[in-house]
Amino acid sequence: MDLISYIDSKQEDHLNELKELLRIPSVSAKSEHRADIERAARWVAERLRTAGLDNVEITPTKLHPVVYGESLRAPGKPTVLFYGHYDVQPAEPLDLWTSPPFEPTVREGNLFGRGTADDKGQIHIHLKALEALRNSSGKLPINVKALVEGEEEVGSINLWEFLRQNRERLKADALVVSDTAMLRKGVPSITYGLRGLNYYQLEVTGPAQDLHSGVFGGAVPNPITVLSEMIAKLHDRNYRVAIPGFYEEVAALSRQERKALGSLPWREKEFRRTVGAPALAGEKGFTIIEQLWTRPTLELNGIWGGYTGEGAKTVIPSKAYAKLSTRLVPNQDPAKIAKLVERQIRRLLPKTVACKFEALSTGKPWVAPYDHPIFQIALQALERGFSKKAVFIREGGSIPLVTQIYDMFKIPCVLLGFGLPDENAHAPDEHIALENYFGGIKSVALFYEQLATL
Amino acid sequence: MDLISYIDSKQEDHLNELKELLRIPSVSAKSEHRADIERAARWVAERLRTAGLDNVEITPTKLHPVVYGESLRAPGKPTVLFYGHYDVQPAEPLDLWTSPPFEPTVREGNLFGRGTADDKGQIHIHLKALEALRNSSGKLPINVKALVEGEEEVGSINLWEFLRQNRERLKADALVVSDTAMLRKGVPSITYGLRGLNYYQLEVTGPAQDLHSGVFGGAVPNPITVLSEMIAKLHDRNYRVAIPGFYEEVAALSRQERKALGSLPWREKEFRRTVGAPALAGEKGFTIIEQLWTRPTLELNGIWGGYTGEGAKTVIPSKAYAKLSTRLVPNQDPAKIAKLVERQIRRLLPKTVACKFEALSTGKPWVAPYDHPIFQIALQALERGFSKKAVFIREGGSIPLVTQIYDMFKIPCVLLGFGLPDENAHAPDEHIALENYFGGIKSVALFYEQLATL
Repeated sequence: MDLISYIDSKQEDHLNELKELLRIPSVSAKSEHRADIERAARWVAERLRTAGLDNVEITPTKLHPVVYGESLRAPGKPTVLFYGHYDVQPAEPLDLWTSPPFEPTVREGNLFGRGTADDKGQIHIHLKALEALRNSSGKLPINVKALVEGEEEVGSINLWEFLRQNRERLKADALVVSDTAMLRKGVPSITYGLRGLNYYQLEVTGPAQDLHSGVFGGAVPNPITVLSEMIAKLHDRNYRVAIPGFYEEVAALSRQERKALGSLPWREKEFRRTVGAPALAGEKGFTIIEQLWTRPTLELNGIWGGYTGEGAKTVIPSKAYAKLSTRLVPNQDPAKIAKLVERQIRRLLPKTVACKFEALSTGKPWVAPYDHPIFQIALQALERGFSKKAVFIREGGSIPLVTQIYDMFKIPCVLLGFGLPDENAHAPDEHIALENYFGGIKSVALFYEQLATL
Repeated sequence: MDLISYIDSKQEDHLNELKELLRIPSVSAKSEHRADIERAARWVAERLRTAGLDNVEITPTKLHPVVYGESLRAPGKPTVLFYGHYDVQPAEPLDLWTSPPFEPTVREGNLFGRGTADDKGQIHIHLKALEALRNSSGKLPINVKALVEGEEEVGSINLWEFLRQNRERLKADALVVSDTAMLRKGVPSITYGLRGLNYYQLEVTGPAQDLHSGVFGGAVPNPITVLSEMIAKLHDRNYRVAIPGFYEEVAALSRQERKALGSLPWREKEFRRTVGAPALAGEKGFTIIEQLWTRPTLELNGIWGGYTGEGAKTVIPSKAYAKLSTRLVPNQDPAKIAKLVERQIRRLLPKTVACKFEALSTGKPWVAPYDHPIFQIALQALERGFSKKAVFIREGGSIPLVTQIYDMFKIPCVLLGFGLPDENAHAPDEHIALENYFGGIKSVALFYEQLATL
């Protein structure tokens, strides 16, 4: 049986196996899921072995373990480093899921569940592509090193130490990652740029304890009001980030790239429908695609303080909190931006309150040329796997490891994304289109097969 | 045994009995506590019977029951309507309590627990004063009607219907309430003014669902940012409420009253210590006491949206929420103010988001002269019960029923408060000073005894 027929014959098995992984609630942000994280790591290790990899190891870190395996049985052939992550975002708010986040369910051609698109479904595409290559031809046509971590959703905190300690072992001719999205359904895509990400937490303290808003209201600082007033000053009326120096090192887009981005088969109407807001809101002077992929942002990711339950409670809280993040583009420096943000927050702080500011994680942007021949092999594999024209795109999200590997080894990084922008990657009802999951396995298998000719 | 000796001999019994009531978590804002509310109502009814009241009834309402009892066995003597509430504020945040909120505990002369000051401890003062009068002299010297409700902390929603239906039955020569605080420890106080309270909830919706802040950030409205920007515009730099028309009907303070308030034995240093904020924040042009008692406010009581758990989640939420309230003073009209607040919120709303605005409850302010002879009897009873000089004060909190009864019957309302401003009425570690609880029972018994001479 040839490679494609073999893959087509296994669809049901593949889907059932993926569901096993999706049922493990490996939420890296929450300590209560520690055992689930361990379980997911063991599951991935076991499947790497099944796919034919040797020396499979689970390496503990200070937080969540790294899974690694390799197959070096194709001397003279290229070596690919594959990267993915087995951890997932928290599933909250739970009441907005149509089916429970950790009970994978197929509806209308989509598989729903936390991690379907980000990133368990996409890891599984590679596991099954490798297994298909081995089972249909008896051996892997190239050398493969697979690195699957458990901290991507919390900033890959301990991965850097692992990379440093395993630098020699991880050396490869190219990095391959599937943790991004296609431009839209029917347009297989290779991503050549990602934004960086700094994530912060801010705590504002007014009174030493919660106070009765009747007895004390009118004479004391309210930390919710103060926090809101500070947040309000972080953007100007043109939706630009109002932090001095924030844009100073942002590289201008070339006319050529603006033109290329402008001619992609992207549909604004589809985007507006996906967002579903009364109107869009973005930095003046840039197209929506430019805003999403090439401009830095500051977004509030969470806010809380005071009484948030049912009914009324007349309290002036002692504290109010916000989680916020900045997405970064070339040539912004994450450490410098973190300092600028903190400096501005402290400048905006009135003397009536105290504040704690913490950068929870920082990460560099990555944009790289796609002129290496491996990108043409990838493009053709996608076009064969999907029977559609493929394109080169950037993305607004962040994959810290890509930057890190690019900086370490200066090798081409091939980002084959099989998600879609409206698949709710970090939201309720996350899903992956089955046609992209199955098309992904075929494309990746064809890609690895053709890489032997490089 | 005379009245005071009798009360002094019962201290331990009184305290133990109060603890029974405090152990019932009768939180009116939360539907999960419905059974506790019922239990607290039955407990109060039983104790009214023990105190010698007849015709004790528990009347169900659409939400929480009203407890009523009366003793009309003193023909020709004044009739007092006593009002209190057996419901309490939510106890959250639970981790900030030194001892659990519903396990009453004595530490350093204070009794800690939710409801100790607001209002279970203060109801109990009256129950025990009445019981002492009956047990020491064989009968009550005046006529008493006792009304104890279970919705005070959620705006007394269904009490008005009860008042309308029982108008004739509730008629009295004076209203007596203990649900306020003394000016400070050692200064027994009668309150002649309260602020009104409107409570609102605001929901801002941007995207139709939560979105990945990498994939979508920079081109879509963030409801947390928008909500913060709206909140920031609700006050000006002088801490005045920036809602057109908000101050239009506020009555000016008389020079005489400003002088009286200014000469109270109040200590700013104590107030600052209680608040514990780096600095105070209040409307320019007014003393702190004037800000607290005589000026209207707008306070944020809660805010939430996006990810509020441990670690990082890169989400742009679909919705963000706020709970806010306005405290009102004469002659502001609650319905009119609710309209002004909503109109301004809608004016501030950018076209990128949608919003829901709801007034959860409204309530009028109350300020009344204290020239009726009953106030002198009360003042003397407090001075005898505490062996201290007593004063007349206003308060920043709200007791909707006082306004309602005052409007209905035009009778004097005597507010004898035995709490203290730093007793955390709506916050963790709520408590009541035992000296005020025991002094309160004596004062109230003396007050009711002397009322017979009116």
